[in-house]
Amino acid sequence: MFIDLHNIFVCLEIKNKVTNDKKLILFGLKSSIFHRLQQEKYCLESMNGVNGPQNGQPHLDHADGQYFLTEAYKVILEEVLCKGTDVKEKVCDWHDPEELSALLDLELREGGESHHQLLQRVRDVAKYSVKTNHPRFFNQLFAGVDYHSLAGRFLTEALNTSQYTYEVAPVFVLMENVMLTKLRSMVGWPQGDGIFCPGGSVSNMYAMNVARYRAYPQVKVQGLWAVPRLAAFTSQEVKYYLCFGGEIPHVHSVEETQDFMQTDLLELLPFLTQGAVPFLVSATSGTTIQGAFDPLDRIADICDKNKLWMHVDAAWGGSVLFSKKHKHLMKGIERADSLAWNPHKMLLAGLQCCVFLLKDNTDLLKQCHCANATYLFQQDKFYDMRMDTGDKSVQCGRKVDCLKLWLMWKAVGTEGLAERVDKVFKLARYLVREMSKREGFQLVNEPQFVNVCFWYIPPSLRGKEGNNDYQEKLSKVAPVIKERMMRKGSMMVGYQPLREKVNFFRMVIISPHISQEDMDFFLDEIERLGKDLYNAL
Amino acid sequence: MFIDLHNIFVCLEIKNKVTNDKKLILFGLKSSIFHRLQQEKYCLESMNGVNGPQNGQPHLDHADGQYFLTEAYKVILEEVLCKGTDVKEKVCDWHDPEELSALLDLELREGGESHHQLLQRVRDVAKYSVKTNHPRFFNQLFAGVDYHSLAGRFLTEALNTSQYTYEVAPVFVLMENVMLTKLRSMVGWPQGDGIFCPGGSVSNMYAMNVARYRAYPQVKVQGLWAVPRLAAFTSQEVKYYLCFGGEIPHVHSVEETQDFMQTDLLELLPFLTQGAVPFLVSATSGTTIQGAFDPLDRIADICDKNKLWMHVDAAWGGSVLFSKKHKHLMKGIERADSLAWNPHKMLLAGLQCCVFLLKDNTDLLKQCHCANATYLFQQDKFYDMRMDTGDKSVQCGRKVDCLKLWLMWKAVGTEGLAERVDKVFKLARYLVREMSKREGFQLVNEPQFVNVCFWYIPPSLRGKEGNNDYQEKLSKVAPVIKERMMRKGSMMVGYQPLREKVNFFRMVIISPHISQEDMDFFLDEIERLGKDLYNAL
Repeated sequence: MFIDLHNIFVCLEIKNKVTNDKKLILFGLKSSIFHRLQQEKYCLESMNGVNGPQNGQPHLDHADGQYFLTEAYKVILEEVLCKGTDVKEKVCDWHDPEELSALLDLELREGGESHHQLLQRVRDVAKYSVKTNHPRFFNQLFAGVDYHSLAGRFLTEALNTSQYTYEVAPVFVLMENVMLTKLRSMVGWPQGDGIFCPGGSVSNMYAMNVARYRAYPQVKVQGLWAVPRLAAFTSQEVKYYLCFGGEIPHVHSVEETQDFMQTDLLELLPFLTQGAVPFLVSATSGTTIQGAFDPLDRIADICDKNKLWMHVDAAWGGSVLFSKKHKHLMKGIERADSLAWNPHKMLLAGLQCCVFLLKDNTDLLKQCHCANATYLFQQDKFYDMRMDTGDKSVQCGRKVDCLKLWLMWKAVGTEGLAERVDKVFKLARYLVREMSKREGFQLVNEPQFVNVCFWYIPPSLRGKEGNNDYQEKLSKVAPVIKERMMRKGSMMVGYQPLREKVNFFRMVIISPHISQEDMDFFLDEIERLGKDLYNAL
Repeated sequence: MFIDLHNIFVCLEIKNKVTNDKKLILFGLKSSIFHRLQQEKYCLESMNGVNGPQNGQPHLDHADGQYFLTEAYKVILEEVLCKGTDVKEKVCDWHDPEELSALLDLELREGGESHHQLLQRVRDVAKYSVKTNHPRFFNQLFAGVDYHSLAGRFLTEALNTSQYTYEVAPVFVLMENVMLTKLRSMVGWPQGDGIFCPGGSVSNMYAMNVARYRAYPQVKVQGLWAVPRLAAFTSQEVKYYLCFGGEIPHVHSVEETQDFMQTDLLELLPFLTQGAVPFLVSATSGTTIQGAFDPLDRIADICDKNKLWMHVDAAWGGSVLFSKKHKHLMKGIERADSLAWNPHKMLLAGLQCCVFLLKDNTDLLKQCHCANATYLFQQDKFYDMRMDTGDKSVQCGRKVDCLKLWLMWKAVGTEGLAERVDKVFKLARYLVREMSKREGFQLVNEPQFVNVCFWYIPPSLRGKEGNNDYQEKLSKVAPVIKERMMRKGSMMVGYQPLREKVNFFRMVIISPHISQEDMDFFLDEIERLGKDLYNAL
C-alpha cells in the first residue's frame, strides 16, 4: 500500500464572513495542479482576507494564519519531503553567494507581503536549501528523515514552551526524565542524572563544569582564582569540542596512534602538566572524522587510579549502544562519570537533540549550575518542586528536545532503532568491500564505525606514489571532485586533511533509507567526477 | 472571511499497492467527526501499511511517513492552534506529576506502535501541555503565536540542517547575515558582527568571552592562569544570567534602587574588586521581573572612562527598538559594545530565537571562538570561505534560528512589528489604569515596560498594613491564587518574591492577539480566585 501523493487533493470549505456564502476551494499538492487551479480562478489571491494586513493589525486573524500555515505545510511536504527525498532530484541546487542573494531577495522592509508572495518565499527557501533528507547526502554526521520525529518537532514548535518548570512544561518534564532514565539504562547506569543540551559541545562543557565543581565546589562562589590551575586531557582529533573560546584553562592533547588515546602515554601525563592538577579525561566514542572509539576500559583504569573525572564524548558514536552486535565498541562505558550523546546524529531525531548523562545521583549537576531564580523556582509551589529541572542548566529558557526522540522511539521501538543502526553498519561494510574491488579507492584506515575515509586516486596518479609531487597532487583531487558534485547537485560528501594526511573523503552512512544501490552510485559518481583528473587540472 | 475549521474535511485518495484499488478515506479535524468515521469503518486502522513495521524495516516508507505527518499536522492544528487559542478552552489541564505520568504512558519499549496509537499520543501530548498560545497565558516572557514564524519553524525542521557552512546551509548563512545586519541597524551600528545563540544566557556568555579575549587574547592559548583576576559588574536582579556554574571568575552585584544600576555607586567599584581587574559591565534593558531599563548613557560614560566592555542584556527589552514611541528606554544603546536580544520573547518568533550582536568589525568573535575544524572549514573550498560563519560559535552543530524571524518580518514588515510592540505597551497601560480603579490591587512599582508587578490584597487584609503578620499573610496570597488558577485552568500568571518584597504577581503582556477584554478578565479572575482569602486560609 502506498499513498500516491501526486493525487492528494485537499478540499476546504471556505465560508465568507460577510456573505456567509460557502465556496469550495480546491488545490493540490502538485504544483501543476496548483497552477491549473490558479488559472481556473480558484487561486488563493481571489480569497478575501488572506492577502495581507487588515484592520490595521497585520496578520492577526487566527483562521487566516492557520490557512497560511496549512498552505506552507503543503509546500514543505512537496518540496522538502517529496522532492527532497527523491533520488531523481538534486541534493543541492548550487549558486554562488552573490547569485543566491539576488535570487532570494532577503531584504527586510517596512511593509509586509501577501500570503501568495510569502508562500513563494517558503518554496524558494526550500528549493535553494540543501536536501539533507536526500539519499545522496553524506556530508555531515546527520542525514535522512524520520517522519515520527518530524511530527514531534512540529508539535514541539506549535506548543512553544520552555523546558524549565513542571508548571509550563508538565508533559516534557516527565518525558525528559523518562528519556534520560532509558538512555542511562543503555549506558548501564541504574541511577544518575542528565539533561538535554543545545549541542554536544555544550554537553562537553557541562562535563568540565561538573568535574571541576566536584573537585573544587568553592569555584562556584569564589571563582576560578580560588582553585588550582587545572588540566584536562583529550586526544588531538577531538580537541575542537573542548575549546570554548578560552573557557578551559588547559586542554592537553594526548598524542595518539590512529585516533584513540595512547593510554600508556596518558599514564605519564600527570608529569607533563607543568604544575597544573589533572581533573578530567575526555575520551571519545566515535571521532568526527575517522569514527574511532577510544578504549574506555583502559582509560577508566587510569581515571580510577588518578581520581580523574572520566567523560566520554559519544555525541556521534553513542548510538552503537542500541546494537547488540556493535556495542562492544563502547565496552567500559558504564565506568565513565559522564557522557555526551547526540541522537540527532545517527538516530535521525533531528537537530538539535543532544543529551548529557551523568552517573552521579547526588544532584551535582543542579548544585553546580543552579542560580535559584525566584521567578521560576519558587519554593512555595503547590507541587513537588523537584519537578522543576531547569536549574540544572546554564540556560534559562531551554528548547524542548525530548519529544521528537520519544515519539520516534514509541513508533519504531528499541528494536527498530537497533535494526537501523545495524543496517548502516552493514552498508558501510558493503561500501568498503565494493571499494576493494575497484581500482583507485584507497582506505585511510579500516573503519571501526560507519565513517569510511578514503582517497580517490585518479588513473593519472596511480602507481606514482613515489613521485615528489604525488601528495600535493593527491591533496587537490577531493576539492575538485567536491566542487564538481556540488555544481552538478548529484551528491554531497565531505573531505578534509588530518595531520600529515592530505585531503581525503569522509563518507558517512547514517540514514536507514539508504540502499546498496546508493553505495554503488556513490562509487560510480566519484569515478565519473574524478577519473579525468590531472588530465584536466 | 474566515475558514471554519470545524467544517474542514480532507479527502485523500488512497491507492492500494497490491490491488491497485482506490478507496476514498475521509476524516475530519474535529474529533467527533473522526470518531464517527472510525465507527463507519473508514478508520485508519483499516488501511494496510500504515499500521506499523513492514518488511523488517520499521516505518521506512516515505509515503506512509508523509501520511502520518499529515495526520499529525491536523491534530496539531486542531488541538494546539484551534483549541489552544480558543478563549473558551482551558489554558492548562492540570494534573499532578504521578497522575499525568499514568495518563501518558511514557515508557519506551522494545516494539513499536501503530500509527493510530501514535496519533493518539500526539493528541495526548497536545492535550496535557500548557497552551502558551492561549490569550490567557501570561506566565513567562514568551506567549502567543505568529503563524508565519511557525511556518518558518516547520520549514526549518523539515530541512534539518546546521548553521555552520555555506555548503550545507546556503540560504540560512545569507539570511542570518541579513537578519543580523538589520537588527544591528536598529541598534545604530552601521557595521559589526553577531550570531544566533541558543538562549540569552549563551549570548551573555559570549559577551564575557569576547570582552576577556579583547583585553587578554593570550587567554585562548594559555588559559585563564595567564590573565589577571577579572571582575564583571551587573545589577542584583539579573545576576542569574551571568552565573554559568562557575564559569565567571567574579560577578559583582551592583546595589540598586528600583532595578537599575546606581551609576554613581558604579563609579566607585574599581576600588571594590579586591584587586581584580574590571573588564565588563553588563547593563540590562528589560529586567525579567520588573521590566526595568538601566540608564545606558550613564553606564556608557563610566565604561568609556574605565575602558570597560559594555554589554547590554536586552534579551527581553530589545524589541522596544521597533517602537518610535518607546525606544527612548534604550537611549544610548549605540554606545554599547555588545547586545543580547531574544526575538522569541516579545516578537513571538518562537523558542529559540536569540541574537548576540557586536559593534566590533575586526572579527573578534571568530578569533575568540574559532577552533578551525578541518572537516568543516576547509581552506581550499571553491567558494568564499568567509561565508562559513560557524566558527564564530562555541557550538559545532547549530540550529537554524533565523528563518522563523525572517519569514515573520517579511509577512508583517518592520511597521507591523512596531505596531505589535506599541499595542502591548498600550494594553499594559490600560491594565494599570483599570487596576487603579479597583480596590485591592497595589502596584509594586510604576511599570516602564509591559511587566505589571502587583500585589492583590484580599478584602480580609485591606487596611491591616500595620499588623505584624501582614507581610507574612500577604506572601501567601499569590501562591494560593496561582494554585487555584492552575487547577481551574482559567489563566496562568507568575509570581515571585524580590529581595525584601514578599510574593507579588508579575503580569506580562506580549501577544498582539490579546485584547482589553482579556485584561478585564484577568482582573476579574484574580478577584474571583482571591477575594475569600484569609477567610478560607
